[in-house]
Amino acid sequence: MQTIYQQMDSGELAQTIASLKDEVAAAKARGLALDMARGKPSPSQVDISRPMLDILGADSDLHDGSVDCGNYGCFEGIPSARKLAGEFLGCPAEQTLVLGSSSLLIEHDIVGTFWRCGTCGSEPWSAYAAAHEDKPVKFLCPVPGYDRHFGITEDLGIVNIPVAMTEDGPDMDEIERLVASDDSIKGIWCVPKYSNPTGITFSEDTVRRLATMTCAAPDFRILWDNAYCVHDLYDEGDELANIFDIAHEAGTEDRVVAFASTSKITFPGAGIGFVGASPAVLAEFAHHLKAGLISADKLNQLRHVRFLPTLDAVREHMKKHAEFLRPRFECVEQKLAEGLGSTGCATWTHPRGGYFVSFDGPEGSAKRVGALCAEMGVRLTTVGATWPYGEDPHDTNIRIAPSYPTVEELSAALDVLVLAVKLVSAELAAEALE
Amino acid sequence: MQTIYQQMDSGELAQTIASLKDEVAAAKARGLALDMARGKPSPSQVDISRPMLDILGADSDLHDGSVDCGNYGCFEGIPSARKLAGEFLGCPAEQTLVLGSSSLLIEHDIVGTFWRCGTCGSEPWSAYAAAHEDKPVKFLCPVPGYDRHFGITEDLGIVNIPVAMTEDGPDMDEIERLVASDDSIKGIWCVPKYSNPTGITFSEDTVRRLATMTCAAPDFRILWDNAYCVHDLYDEGDELANIFDIAHEAGTEDRVVAFASTSKITFPGAGIGFVGASPAVLAEFAHHLKAGLISADKLNQLRHVRFLPTLDAVREHMKKHAEFLRPRFECVEQKLAEGLGSTGCATWTHPRGGYFVSFDGPEGSAKRVGALCAEMGVRLTTVGATWPYGEDPHDTNIRIAPSYPTVEELSAALDVLVLAVKLVSAELAAEALE
Repeated sequence: MQTIYQQMDSGELAQTIASLKDEVAAAKARGLALDMARGKPSPSQVDISRPMLDILGADSDLHDGSVDCGNYGCFEGIPSARKLAGEFLGCPAEQTLVLGSSSLLIEHDIVGTFWRCGTCGSEPWSAYAAAHEDKPVKFLCPVPGYDRHFGITEDLGIVNIPVAMTEDGPDMDEIERLVASDDSIKGIWCVPKYSNPTGITFSEDTVRRLATMTCAAPDFRILWDNAYCVHDLYDEGDELANIFDIAHEAGTEDRVVAFASTSKITFPGAGIGFVGASPAVLAEFAHHLKAGLISADKLNQLRHVRFLPTLDAVREHMKKHAEFLRPRFECVEQKLAEGLGSTGCATWTHPRGGYFVSFDGPEGSAKRVGALCAEMGVRLTTVGATWPYGEDPHDTNIRIAPSYPTVEELSAALDVLVLAVKLVSAELAAEALE
Repeated sequence: MQTIYQQMDSGELAQTIASLKDEVAAAKARGLALDMARGKPSPSQVDISRPMLDILGADSDLHDGSVDCGNYGCFEGIPSARKLAGEFLGCPAEQTLVLGSSSLLIEHDIVGTFWRCGTCGSEPWSAYAAAHEDKPVKFLCPVPGYDRHFGITEDLGIVNIPVAMTEDGPDMDEIERLVASDDSIKGIWCVPKYSNPTGITFSEDTVRRLATMTCAAPDFRILWDNAYCVHDLYDEGDELANIFDIAHEAGTEDRVVAFASTSKITFPGAGIGFVGASPAVLAEFAHHLKAGLISADKLNQLRHVRFLPTLDAVREHMKKHAEFLRPRFECVEQKLAEGLGSTGCATWTHPRGGYFVSFDGPEGSAKRVGALCAEMGVRLTTVGATWPYGEDPHDTNIRIAPSYPTVEELSAALDVLVLAVKLVSAELAAEALE
C-alpha cells in the first residue's frame, strides 16, 4: 500500500511536513495530558457496579448453601460462584476453581506449576529445558497480543514465539506446522473472544483446529484467557465455539486451561477469578496451590454471586458497560476513518467487543508515533508491547485503549494520534527520497 | 517421668484399664461430634467483625488518598494499608506490600521465587539442588510447628529438618551449629509470637541470635510469620523484639522476610495479607510477582483500613476476640490440670495468646489417643502434623485448637481427650509389663 505522502514529490512533501509540524506545535501548546495506555474502564463506568457494595452488610446471611463464607474452608470456591464460573468458561462447575481477584495471577501460578512440576505425568517444563540445552521451552504468542501474557512466560525463561493473527484468530497453518514436529513448544496464549488488542474472535474452525491438532508435545497446553467472554458492544455479539466440548469429543481435554474474571464486569482488580480445566489438570493444580492456600476470599465471591446470580444477570449488567464503551469505540472508528481513511497510512481493527483497537501504521512508524504523541501529551500503551519482548519487527503496531478517557478527551487524543501518524508517515516518505 | 499407671502392679492396672474402657464405652454412646482440628474462630467470634461489612457502600468515596481503589493500579497496596502493614511487621511502610487475603499464599509465592530465581544475586535454590545431588536444599522447622509451613517447603522438594522448640523459641545452640557450616540450609520457618502450636514467644535473645548468627548460606532466609502479633489473651501480652531493627543494625536485613494478615482479626480467609522485607528482597519479589499481578483487591484493603485505621484500633478490636478465646484457653488449662495434672501422663503449654495449646503425652501415645478421640466423636488435628512429613518421632504431640467449639463443647471434648490419654497411658504401661 502506498501512502499519499509517498505519491508526493519532494517539494510538496516538504511543504506538507512543514504544515503538519505547525499543527504539532499547536497541539503541544494545548498542554494535553491524556492516557490511553491501559484497558481500564472509566470511573463513571466502574460506578455501574457500586450497588454491589451494598450487597453484604453487618446483618447479612454469610452462607452460600452450607458454606460459611466468613470463615476458613472451601478451597475450591463457593458453590454458586463455581456454577457461574462453569457458565463463563463453558465447562462443568466441578471442573472450575474460583479464586482471588486476579485471573492473571491464576495464569501465572498454573504456568509456574507446569514449569516446576510438569502436567499429566510429563516431566516438568524446567526439566525439559535443563535436558535440552539447545532447545529451550517455547510458547506460541499470537501477535499483536497481550503483553502481560507474554511477560508470564518470559519471566519463567520460556521463549516466546510470535504467530500472526488473522481475521479468524491465530494463523492455524503456521501453528499446526510448528507444533506437529517440535516437542519443545509447550503451549499457546489465547484471548479467544475480542482478542487483546485486535478485538478478533476466533472462528469455530480455529477453535476446532487448536483443540484437535496433532502436537509433538504430549503436555501442550492452550491457555484460553476468555477475559472478554461477555464483553459485547452490541446486542448481537461475536459467537465463540465451546473449546471444552470440542476437546472433550477429541479426547484432548487435558490440553485446555481456561480463565475468566469479573474484573471488567464489577471492579477492576477487585473481582473474582475463575479457572477451568479437565479433572486431571484441575486436580494437579489444586494439589500444588493448596500447599499455599487455605481458601480464597469467599465474602467477595458471595458479594458477586448475590449481585450477579446468573449469566443472564451478567449479560444485563454488561449492557450498561456497553453504553459507556460503544461511543468510545465508535469515536475511534470515526476519527481514524476521517483522519486517515484516505491516506493509505494505516489500517485498524473494528471490534464488536473487548477493550482495544489494534492499529498499524507504515513500517518503521510506530515508535516515532508513540514518542510524538507523548510530546503532545497523549500516553499510548508502550509501543511494541503487543509483541514478545516488546519487539515489533516491522514497528507498525499501536494498541489503542479507548475506555478510560471521556469521549471528548478520547476525541482530542485521536486527533493527536492522527496528526502524529500523518507527520511520521510524511517524514518516512521524505527520508525514503533522500 | 513415671506415669501413675507405670507405678501400678499388673492386677491394679488391669482393673484400671477395665474401668477406663467402661468410661470410653459410655462416651461413645453419647455420640459426640466435636471438631478441634483447625485454628478457626467460632462463628460468634467472627461476628465481631460484621460491622466492617457496612463500611463500604454504593455511595462511599473509594479513594485512599489519590488512589482509586475501585480500578486497576497500585500494585504495592494502598498507602493506608501499607502504613498499617509497617506497624504490624515493625518495618517502614515502604518496605511492605499489601496483597490478597492469604499471607500463606504470599509465603508460598516468595519461597517459590527463591527456589526458581534465587535471592540477592545467589543462584536459585533449585540450581543449588541440581548442582549438589547429595546435598538437597534444607529448611529448619521448629517442632512442634505449623503443618502448612512445612507443606510449602515440602511441595518444593526442600528437605525439612526438625529443630526442637524450647521455652524461649527454637533451640538456638542447635540452629547456630547447623547453619554455620552447611550452606544447603537456606532458611527457617518461624511463628515468633504465640507460636503455632506451642504458644511460645521467642525471647529477645532468640530473636537477636537468629538475626545475627553466622550462616554458611549467604542466601539464608528467616520466614517470620507474625500471624499472632496482636493476638493477646490478656491485657499484658508477650513482647516480641523487633527483628528488623536488630537485623538492620547487624547488616543482615536481607535475611528477614516477615508476614502477617488480618485473617484472625476480621474474617478468616477474607482479610488482607502483608509482607515486609529489605528494600532489595522486596524489589526482587515484586519484580516477579508483577509478572502475574496488576494489583490486589484494594477495595478490601480500603474496607479494612477504614474499619481498623490504626494499630490502636486493632488492639481494641482484639480485646473483643480475647473475650471469646480466654475462657476457651482457661477451660483447656483447667480440664487438663484437673484430669491429668497428677497422673504424670502429660505436659502441655500455657499460652497467653495465639490459637493453640501444644500437648505431649507418653511416648508412643499420640496416634492412639487421636484415634480413640475420633472413636468418641472428637476430631483433633491429624496427629503428627506438627512435625515435618507428619512424622513425630516419639509420637507424643497433639495440637489442641480450642477456638471453634463453644466452651461447653470444648469442655466435653477435653473430657474425651483426658479419658483417651488415661486409657492409652494405662495400656502402654500394661504392654510394657508383658
